[in-house]
Amino acid sequence: MTAGTAVNDTRSRLLATALKLFGEHGMEGTSMQMIADELGVTKAALYYHFKSKDEIAEAVAAPALQEMDQILDEARTKRSRGAQIDHALAGFVDLIVRERTLVGLFNSDPGLQRLIKRTLQARDEDLKTKLRTVFAGADPGLADAITVHVMSAGLAMAGGAPEFAGVDDDTLREHLLDAGRRLLGRPRPKHPGKSRLRLRI
Amino acid sequence: MTAGTAVNDTRSRLLATALKLFGEHGMEGTSMQMIADELGVTKAALYYHFKSKDEIAEAVAAPALQEMDQILDEARTKRSRGAQIDHALAGFVDLIVRERTLVGLFNSDPGLQRLIKRTLQARDEDLKTKLRTVFAGADPGLADAITVHVMSAGLAMAGGAPEFAGVDDDTLREHLLDAGRRLLGRPRPKHPGKSRLRLRI
Repeated sequence: MTAGTAVNDTRSRLLATALKLFGEHGMEGTSMQMIADELGVTKAALYYHFKSKDEIAEAVAAPALQEMDQILDEARTKRSRGAQIDHALAGFVDLIVRERTLVGLFNSDPGLQRLIKRTLQARDEDLKTKLRTVFAGADPGLADAITVHVMSAGLAMAGGAPEFAGVDDDTLREHLLDAGRRLLGRPRPKHPGKSRLRLRI
Repeated sequence: MTAGTAVNDTRSRLLATALKLFGEHGMEGTSMQMIADELGVTKAALYYHFKSKDEIAEAVAAPALQEMDQILDEARTKRSRGAQIDHALAGFVDLIVRERTLVGLFNSDPGLQRLIKRTLQARDEDLKTKLRTVFAGADPGLADAITVHVMSAGLAMAGGAPEFAGVDDDTLREHLLDAGRRLLGRPRPKHPGKSRLRLRI
C-alpha cells in the first residue's frame, strides 16, 4: 500500500465514521472530538484532513450529489423522453436506497440541509433545476413542476424514513420505483426486478 | 366586546404574529422579545399568555393538527374505502394549501418538528398511524405503507415549498390532488374543481 492509498483509506474511514455519528447525534450534536475518539485518533490528526465539521459534512454528501449529477447527465443522452425519465428515476431511487442514512440525515438535519443547499448553488447548473429538466422538460408547466417536486421529496422522505430502515434494499427499491412511476405516469417494465439475465439498453 | 373575546383576539393576533416571525427567522431565530416588539406589547404581557416560545409554537400548530384529526374521523364515517380515501385526501390537501406557511415551516424547522412530534406522541392514537390507517387500512402491506408515506411527505413538501408560494390556492390544490390521486390509484371526480361545465373523462 502506498502512502497515497493509506491517506485515502483513512479519509473514507473518517467519512463513514462521521456519517454514522451524524446519524446518531445529528450534525450539531457531533463534535470533532467525538469523531476523533470514535476513530481512535487525536483531534490534531482529524484536523490534518479537514478544517471543520462543515467540511467533513460536505465531503460526506459530495459523492452522492456527484453521482446524482452523473445519473442526470446519462439520462439526457437517452433518445426518448420516456427513456430519459425511466433512467433518471431508476438512478434516483437506487441512490436513495443505497444512501439511506445520508438521505435520512438530510431529511431531518437542518445543518446538513443548509450546507448542501450552499454546495448546490455554487455549481454551474443547479442540481435541482437539472433534475426538474430531465423529469419534466426545459420549460415545464406548473402541473409537471409540482409532480416532480412531490416525486423527489416524497421518495427521498420515504426512502430515508426510520420506519422503513429494516426493509431490504431490493424490496424498498421496487416499492419506491412503483410509486415514482405512478406519479410520473410511466409504465412498469415488462420484466421487472431482479431478473439478472435481462438485457439493458 | 367582553373581556373573554378581547383575550381571544389578542391570543389569535399573537399566534399569527409568531407564525409570521417563525417563517421569516425560523423558530430558533425568533425571540420572545421580537414577538412582543412586533405586537407592540411588553414581554410581560406576552408571558401573561404563554410561558415559553415552545408553548407558542405548540399553540400555533395545534389548530391544524386538530383539524387533520377531525378530517380523518370524518373520513372513517364514509362507507366505502374509496370514499374514505377521497375524503381524507381532499381534506389533507386543502389543509396543506390553507396552512402553507405553517407547513413550509414544519418542513424546514427542526425545532417545530421536534415539538409537533412530541405533541403527536402524547395523544391516544398517533395522528400519523391514524392517517396511514385511513389511507391504507388497519394492517397495510409494505407497498401501501410506503405509498402513503410518499404521498403525505411529498404533498406536504411541495405544498409548503417556497417556489410555489406564488401559486393561487385553487390551482395548487388541484395539482396536489391530482398527484395524490395518481399515487393512490384514485380516479378523478366526474365534476372536478371549478370547471363545472367541462366534461372530463
